[in-house]
Amino acid sequence: MSSIPAAPDDAVRACIADWRAAFLDDLAEWLRIPSVSADPGHAADVRRSADWLAAKLAATGFPVTEVWDTDGAPAVFADWPSGDPAAPTVLVYGHHDVQPAARSDGWHSDPFVPEQRDGRLYARGAADDKGQVLFHALGVRAHLTATGRTSPAVNLKLLIEGEEESGSPHFPELLRTHATRLACDAVIISDTSMWSKDTPTVCTGMRGLTDCQIDLYGPGQDIHSGAFGGAVPNPATEAARLAASLHDEQRRVTLPGFYDDVIELTPAERELFAELPFDEDTWLRTAHSHATLGEEGHTTLERIWARPTAEVNGIAGGYQGPGSKTVIPSHALLKLSFRLVAGQDAEKIQQSVREWAARTLPDGIRHEIVFWGATRPCLTPLGHPALTSVVRSMERAFGGRVRFTREGGSGPAADLQDVLDAPVLFLGISVPSDGWHSPDEKVELDLLTKGAEAAAYLWDDLAEHWSTQARTPTVP
Amino acid sequence: MSSIPAAPDDAVRACIADWRAAFLDDLAEWLRIPSVSADPGHAADVRRSADWLAAKLAATGFPVTEVWDTDGAPAVFADWPSGDPAAPTVLVYGHHDVQPAARSDGWHSDPFVPEQRDGRLYARGAADDKGQVLFHALGVRAHLTATGRTSPAVNLKLLIEGEEESGSPHFPELLRTHATRLACDAVIISDTSMWSKDTPTVCTGMRGLTDCQIDLYGPGQDIHSGAFGGAVPNPATEAARLAASLHDEQRRVTLPGFYDDVIELTPAERELFAELPFDEDTWLRTAHSHATLGEEGHTTLERIWARPTAEVNGIAGGYQGPGSKTVIPSHALLKLSFRLVAGQDAEKIQQSVREWAARTLPDGIRHEIVFWGATRPCLTPLGHPALTSVVRSMERAFGGRVRFTREGGSGPAADLQDVLDAPVLFLGISVPSDGWHSPDEKVELDLLTKGAEAAAYLWDDLAEHWSTQARTPTVP
Repeated sequence: MSSIPAAPDDAVRACIADWRAAFLDDLAEWLRIPSVSADPGHAADVRRSADWLAAKLAATGFPVTEVWDTDGAPAVFADWPSGDPAAPTVLVYGHHDVQPAARSDGWHSDPFVPEQRDGRLYARGAADDKGQVLFHALGVRAHLTATGRTSPAVNLKLLIEGEEESGSPHFPELLRTHATRLACDAVIISDTSMWSKDTPTVCTGMRGLTDCQIDLYGPGQDIHSGAFGGAVPNPATEAARLAASLHDEQRRVTLPGFYDDVIELTPAERELFAELPFDEDTWLRTAHSHATLGEEGHTTLERIWARPTAEVNGIAGGYQGPGSKTVIPSHALLKLSFRLVAGQDAEKIQQSVREWAARTLPDGIRHEIVFWGATRPCLTPLGHPALTSVVRSMERAFGGRVRFTREGGSGPAADLQDVLDAPVLFLGISVPSDGWHSPDEKVELDLLTKGAEAAAYLWDDLAEHWSTQARTPTVP
Repeated sequence: MSSIPAAPDDAVRACIADWRAAFLDDLAEWLRIPSVSADPGHAADVRRSADWLAAKLAATGFPVTEVWDTDGAPAVFADWPSGDPAAPTVLVYGHHDVQPAARSDGWHSDPFVPEQRDGRLYARGAADDKGQVLFHALGVRAHLTATGRTSPAVNLKLLIEGEEESGSPHFPELLRTHATRLACDAVIISDTSMWSKDTPTVCTGMRGLTDCQIDLYGPGQDIHSGAFGGAVPNPATEAARLAASLHDEQRRVTLPGFYDDVIELTPAERELFAELPFDEDTWLRTAHSHATLGEEGHTTLERIWARPTAEVNGIAGGYQGPGSKTVIPSHALLKLSFRLVAGQDAEKIQQSVREWAARTLPDGIRHEIVFWGATRPCLTPLGHPALTSVVRSMERAFGGRVRFTREGGSGPAADLQDVLDAPVLFLGISVPSDGWHSPDEKVELDLLTKGAEAAAYLWDDLAEHWSTQARTPTVP
């Protein structure tokens, strides 16, 4: 435990207020670099963005800053050891690449010429994710200045990747290559949103994923549905029956054992979800959907955050062109994905899928299953000491209660958790209206500085409350 | 009833034997014309084929021969009135266009240079359908010569269309345009196969058809299956559930009322089907399939000939490319076809489909149904006097028992039945090994002349046994 007293709130706030203008200038400079990882024409910009960040972190005081090459775009690594041998080691994750953007997509200002309007900074990457990466530089400066430290209360590492917007294709490899230098007690991911400006939240987990393709082969060639219809198995019909058999009438997934290992929501967690100001109409608009539908006995938030699913991502078989062609096709395919929640094991689910397909399909239909991948779910239990530190720091910054969310999707968090074998925590200050991947992406300036403030508190809090002994693995 | 005695078998056979060589020369000449209706480059050949046939029928003695233009390929009409005012009027249907063929498809001789080998004539169109059209010219000559008549015992009309291999797109219009001149008491279709050379058969009906496309619309755009999966309806899943709900576990169609009007097979009909030397392995090879599957309680022949079906001809939704894309698609589609049997009414089935879709799909999935068409089933009851005449004529020609088959498909027969309001009978002498639409199409020369012989007997038999009074409609 650190012997230096934690930073007082006033001192942290004063630092941040003093440096706010310079910080925003820095951020604007970085946002001018169009680091679009999806576009090979911007490869030099992505590298320039990495170099800019490495230099900025060096200027901030990080004694180690490196640009790490991958087979794709470069990542930035920074390391600032604490002087305290008992200090926990924290790795902050973010990304410096951005989505493509063009003024003609509907932007009100040039996406790569940052513009402040009404307390917001508009630019591609403002919220996703450059703003949320850079507030850590401001945060650590405030942490040091307010405490009079010369090194952070935790061993602070940053890993800022350059291909997140392209699906992080080389990220697991990058993690494995540098696993020793990336070793940490906890990962802090700053690449998520809160519920809203008025309802600050901390994300506590993401669903896992395993997805597959099932190819069904029937007749050796397409055959005439008049001559043979009604007497031989039709792979399109069987693909439909197979997919339909995934859910019962209560929309529960029917795969044997599917729910066996699910860590069920506690009544307290369900209550916390229910306290969020969820408005179904608003949510349906976000989903571009016209009705909710899902597992009986669960709310929409429970369904997307804490319940496992089976979805048909693709189905194909037979004639798809205009008009009619009365054929029994020789082939059909299903693309299925299963979102997994804490407790579930992807390999067990895969085995259940294999057995279900083999058992369900009739004689005369040969099938092949290929699983594309498996991403473990991650969940930090509500009582986890590192999560408590995150929440406490957020509550100090926001001056009020911080609630809990989860994410329905699956992301690099799972790679970090799996390769580094560390619990994953989320410190994000973006809000759903920030327009990720859309025109007029922006970040709320007040939230950005609150993020820096929360980070400034967090390193102290973790060092104080998360002793070496407490850092035993508690993630399921 | 005709006062001229029917032709004795010996006299008919003698005529046919005498003219066989000349008849085969004629057929070979016709087969040299590549009347491929699907290929616009052969349009002139299709017309040449029509002209050739009209001239040949004129030379045979038909007082009226005409080439009828359509918006596509021309048809040939011929008319030879009987002298007897009580004589029934019979319309023979066939087609003079052929499937495409190229030596490089695997033919052992040029598809448009007919070649006799081992009692067979190899050429595109030999069996489908020029051989089966032209045997009527030989048949009516034998009928006349053997009886000493100058005009046939029936009012004999021929309608030989030029677009059957292209789906008969202008055929219903052609029938409606010329309905008065085509008026008849019965249609004889010579465009089908028998069970085999050793098991001569007469087809007694074809299934009807109605088919549709159902479009399912869910989210306004593809959405992320992580962010929203498990909480909104997925059109691909719902398309699968809809298609799967078409059949129960006994593979009976579940549409309410679907079987209500079905004219069930009589025990005698089932027995007649069961007597056919059906070999499942052989049949499965024809179907390119690896197992049978269909409505419980019925044999394969019953399933394809006498039971209505629901088939998925096409299904599509979401991502179909390589690899994974975890999306909830905004749209999915189903292409369904329903084969109908005697008694069923296509419009009633369509209404049932509409109600089933509306009832089955959940809130949040909008759907549209388009029916492509409706073809009525046709069935000539076993006791029908015209059918008895066909069977008797076939048995005289083949010198043994003739059994019954049906066709699972649907074809121009239904248009003829519907527009001309006449029962449809089948007089075909092709066999499954003739290779329709395949390389090395051929016709068995002995069967071809037996076809001519049966036709020669048929006109007498119909005139004798199917008096004006008996020609009341008996088709369901």
